[in-house]
This record gives sequence, C-alpha cells and structure tokens, in this order.
Amino acid sequence: MTTYSDLNITPRTLMGPGPSDVAPRVLRALAHPPVGHLDPQFVKVMDEVQELLRFIFETTNEMTIPISGTGSAGMEAAVANFIETGDPVLICINGYFGMRIAEMAERYGAEVTRIEKPWGEVFAPEDVDAALRRRSAKIVAMVHGETSTGAMQPLDGMAEVVHGHGGLLLVDTVASLGGVPVSVDRHALDIVYSGSQKALSAPPGLAPLTVSPRALEALKRRESKVANWYLDLNLLANYWGPARMYHHTAPINMNYALREALRLAQEEGLEAGFARHRANAEFLWAGLEEMGMQMHVAHEVRLPTLTTVRVPDGVDEAAVRSRLMNEFNLEIAGGLGALKGQVWRVGLMGYSSQHRNVTLFLGALREVLAG
Amino acid sequence: MTTYSDLNITPRTLMGPGPSDVAPRVLRALAHPPVGHLDPQFVKVMDEVQELLRFIFETTNEMTIPISGTGSAGMEAAVANFIETGDPVLICINGYFGMRIAEMAERYGAEVTRIEKPWGEVFAPEDVDAALRRRSAKIVAMVHGETSTGAMQPLDGMAEVVHGHGGLLLVDTVASLGGVPVSVDRHALDIVYSGSQKALSAPPGLAPLTVSPRALEALKRRESKVANWYLDLNLLANYWGPARMYHHTAPINMNYALREALRLAQEEGLEAGFARHRANAEFLWAGLEEMGMQMHVAHEVRLPTLTTVRVPDGVDEAAVRSRLMNEFNLEIAGGLGALKGQVWRVGLMGYSSQHRNVTLFLGALREVLAG
Repeated sequence: MTTYSDLNITPRTLMGPGPSDVAPRVLRALAHPPVGHLDPQFVKVMDEVQELLRFIFETTNEMTIPISGTGSAGMEAAVANFIETGDPVLICINGYFGMRIAEMAERYGAEVTRIEKPWGEVFAPEDVDAALRRRSAKIVAMVHGETSTGAMQPLDGMAEVVHGHGGLLLVDTVASLGGVPVSVDRHALDIVYSGSQKALSAPPGLAPLTVSPRALEALKRRESKVANWYLDLNLLANYWGPARMYHHTAPINMNYALREALRLAQEEGLEAGFARHRANAEFLWAGLEEMGMQMHVAHEVRLPTLTTVRVPDGVDEAAVRSRLMNEFNLEIAGGLGALKGQVWRVGLMGYSSQHRNVTLFLGALREVLAG
Repeated sequence: MTTYSDLNITPRTLMGPGPSDVAPRVLRALAHPPVGHLDPQFVKVMDEVQELLRFIFETTNEMTIPISGTGSAGMEAAVANFIETGDPVLICINGYFGMRIAEMAERYGAEVTRIEKPWGEVFAPEDVDAALRRRSAKIVAMVHGETSTGAMQPLDGMAEVVHGHGGLLLVDTVASLGGVPVSVDRHALDIVYSGSQKALSAPPGLAPLTVSPRALEALKRRESKVANWYLDLNLLANYWGPARMYHHTAPINMNYALREALRLAQEEGLEAGFARHRANAEFLWAGLEEMGMQMHVAHEVRLPTLTTVRVPDGVDEAAVRSRLMNEFNLEIAGGLGALKGQVWRVGLMGYSSQHRNVTLFLGALREVLAG
C-alpha cells in the first residue's frame, strides 16, 4: 500500500491571479475546531459574516451571503437564479471571464447577445445603451476586474443605462472586491459576486454574493424553479435568513476564515485598503517601466490588484515563471486565452499586496532576465 | 461601526448528523498556508487525494475526485451530469435525502418514478426489479446511509438488478463512507458521492465523488451540455486529469485537510475503522436499551454512524438537546421530516466515534432525564 508523508509544502509568495497569501490570523481562525452548522455559536458567525460582507460590498442588501463554493460557483449562482430559458441576456466580453458568463448563461437557456472589446479594453455606458437599443435584455453582465486582462471596468453610469432599459446589472467582482471600490449601492448594482481568495485573502472555497431588492423581485417573478438546487437563492435565503432552515451544511471553517479576513479589512478601513492596493500597484508599474517593460492595459483603466505586463521580445515567458517559482518561491502567472504567451499576470491582492513583495518581485525578475 | 471580537467559540463534542469532530492533525493541515491551484506541489496533493479517495471508496475508478462544495453539491453533481431532460429515473425514497435527490432530478428535467418505504426501512433488490419491470430507468438512485432515519440500505445484489435493466446505480454515501463498507467496485456502483464532514471527519466543504467507466460512457453519450457548469464532469476531468486545464480554483486548504483525514483513515486501516464504528455503535445501542429506550431502526439495517433513538413518552426532546448542549457542550440532533419530534439522532462518525464520547453521552443523558 502506498504511504503518504506529512504535508510538506514549501510556502510561496503568491503574486498570481489568486489565490493570494493568507494572513496568519486568518489561518488560525480557519483551524478552529468546527461546531455544528445550526449551533447558536455558528449562527452568530453567519450573521457577522453577512454584516462584514455588506461592509466590504458597501451595501445594505439583505441578501448578502457567502456561496458555499469558489468564485465560479458565485458566478453560477448569479446566472442560475436570474436566468430562465429564453431570457434575453446581454454580455459584455473583453476577456476570459465574460466568455465564461456567456457559456454559463447559454447552459441555463438564455438568449445571449454579446458585445465585444479587445482584451484589455473596457466598455462605456454608451456601448451598453446602443446594444440595448438594438435588443433589450433582462440581464446585462460585465466583469469589473478581468483577471485575464488586468482591465478594470468603470461602473459609473452603467446601472442608469441598464435600469433605463428595464434590465438588471450583473457584475463579476472576483478580482476586485476588497482591492478597489465596488460600492454596490452607490453604483446601483443588482447582482454581484466575488471569491474569497483574491483581495479578501481568505483561502479559496467561498463566493460572496449580494443581490439588490430589485433583483430579488425578479427572482420572485420566475415562472420555473431554479434548475440548480444547491445554489437556489430561495432555499439559501431560508438558511441564511431568520428561519435557519437546513439546506446544506455550510463550510464551517471556511466561514471562520472569511470572517477573520473581513475583520482584518474592517480594521484597516476600506479607504486605507484601497490606497494600499493602489500604492503598491503604482510602485510595481513604475518599477516595470523602469526596466523598459510595457503594461498591457492603459493606466486609467488598469486594475491595481492584477497587472498584465507585456513579455519583452525574445524572452521565454514560461522559463522566467519557472525560475521565479523554483529559485524564489514566487508565483506569478502567464497569459490566459487571447493573451497566452504575450503577458505575465502579476497579482497584488489582499495580504499579498505588500511593498516588500513588489521589491522582491522586481529584484527577482531583474536577476532572472539578466540570465 | 460595529466591531467584532476575536473568534471565541466554545468547542463542542459533535455527536449530531455531521459535521463530526475533526482531529488535530487535520486542523493543522487545514491551516497550512495555501499555494497556487496549479502549483506542482498542489498538483501532487490533488493526485494523492484522488488515490486516497479510491482507497476509501474501494474503487479503481479513474474519475474519483472531491467536488468543490459540500455533500449536497456532490448530490447535485451526480444528478446534473447524468440526467438530461426527459430521462426516466427511479428513486428509492425512505427518508429525507431520497426526497432531495428526486427534487434535484426533477429540476434537471428527469421523468421521476418514486418507490417508497416507511422512514427507517430499506429496499430489497426485488423492490427495484419490480419497479423497473413496470418502467425502465436510465438511473436508479438510493441512499446508503439515510441521515434522516439511521437506516443502512444493503447494496448486495442491487447493481445486478439495475444493470440487468440497462440502468446506472447512483448511491448517496454521505453518512456512510469511511464508517461502514461502501465497496464501490465490489458492489458495482456507478455514481457515488459523499461529504467530507461525516465519517471522514474533515471540515465540511468537499464532496468526494466516484464514477464508474460505465457511467462515464453514458456521460459521453449525452446530447445536451450539462446545465451546471461548475459541476460539469467533462470540465472537471480536464482539471483533475493529466491536462490540468484551469476550470475553477480548488479549495486548496480544504484539500490539505481532506488528504490528512484520509491519511488517518488509511493509517487506521479500513477494516479497523469499520470495526471501531461498529463497536462504539453497539455500545451506544446497548446503553440506550439499558435505559429502557428503543432504537427506531431494526438492528440488521441500523447505521453505525448515525443512530435514531425513539424519544421516551412525556419527554420534551428539544429541552433535552438544549441541556446537553448548554451543560455538556455535546451536540446531538432532533428528528427531521417525518421523524421530527419522535427521535433523537446521535452520530458516531469518524473522529467522533470514540468510546469515551458514548460514555459521556450516556452519562449526560441519564443526568438530564433524571431532571
């Protein structure tokens, strides 16, 4: 019989597109012995996680919960609950994750209209308005922080356009929440999800989700049951709401960890956290430019949590990543999809967004490129 | 602004229907800093988790993975991948979780036929044969360990009947895997899922799943895409298989924990683990009978991991549970569904299955019932 060693994993500095490094306090909370999922002590944790999620989303939405799965499960919850067969949906695609939303929406029977931009660019409210004039949509979906491109989609004015056409605005904030302002209520976003393992710096395994009262009304008006039982918000509302009706066993320890990660964000303060992410990103960009490199995304729409930098001509991008990993225990990522081979993706998310990490990365990259 | 305290949760002894207590070694593995989901070190963890899951399922099935969600996500993966709209499905219902399978199957468009038994009884192969003679089915589903009733469904001879009619046998082992033999290959089961937080004694958040080559053939013959993208086994196979194609970010730390929990099971040995669960359950049953109480399920089909004991006449069952929790930090559960108010549910799963826990519970119950 094969025998297996003790877990023996060399820590890395995680500067890829997520997961990011997890603070020691969060790891300690994670390892607290679990109690039952209906234990009054855990019910209190659930309440606090909801309150802290409202803080980070900047919303008063009652329906604000962590979905018991990773960020992709958050995306699927957003799609499965609000789309019925035949519903017209408009999807703004400027990277991999917009494509994924479209793929999911089609599986749930949506009539999908796509508008597209080159990877690294973003949409203007006028683009959405023009598309909705051609064909209205029940849902308009876009990605706030495109992990595949490093572009940050401006949200100002989007909801006005979408609501003006009678639609709901669905926004992916997996790579942005906690690192840059999402401001769900100020932007009047309707359906918003994220992941625990990026700028929130909890381990992967939970997907924060918040839903506006306007979107909940649409959920009530559904004619068919939500196909996806596990992610059905009607059932989840009964578990997370006052009824506390058993639905599934929440990932107890992951909720301990998410609570602690959100508590850290609250202690730092939202604005201070955003300023830290911004400052470390600017330091990274300046350092890379000083080395003669180019960022893939224009400065004004560049995501502070995830940078795409063009691989210099003649450089073997995969070999550089291997050396960073093997010699420096430092993880960055290559390009995805249309940007494969063209860029490196460098994450500065949550606990990984530290000045010293940028210093280490720039130094290591300089050494590796020198040969 | 509300401030939140350090996590301050009194440990309980978990003797409900799950989660069960988690061993210190597993909690330590859980708290190991995460690395990236495509890091070679994590890829090795994935391989080892798969091997250890094959060990505990007693199978050589290549497609053996932990689904990135709780036990209910395992159920949903089993249903979503193998059912297309209009497929005839036979579901054996003798408790809450059989009903849940039927509910999910209907949401994915199955034509569901139900056969039913009173809660606490089990099905014979002849029952299934008779039902399939009336109407054949693509899938026959049953629950091996019914957490709602404490009955253990015998699996001998079931696959022969189901395969004889050209169907696939789907079995829920959420409350049984690791505590009693599931023996996937010997029983020729086709689609089997479980949860991490019961007799495996990892925290909740992963759902082991194994699929036979016969069932994979059926998956390949699907005419429509799997509606559920997050749980689509075609995509998951590319991530867990040699291609290592990115699908979603696996819950890294939960996989660390599951690996360690399975390693503990391997060190103890399957037969020794089953014998421990059996011995502690027999000790519990004898103790309860000595106190004049009756088990709800006949001895020969009684689940060692979860006992339903009839609440004595005149006893306020909820008050007893509250006192066990408040005075002894000991969690048991009340009845669910048709057995609500009639039974207590006492779990002896995984790390919670200890002789000393039974001694504590019997002593505490004696004190509480004495008033």
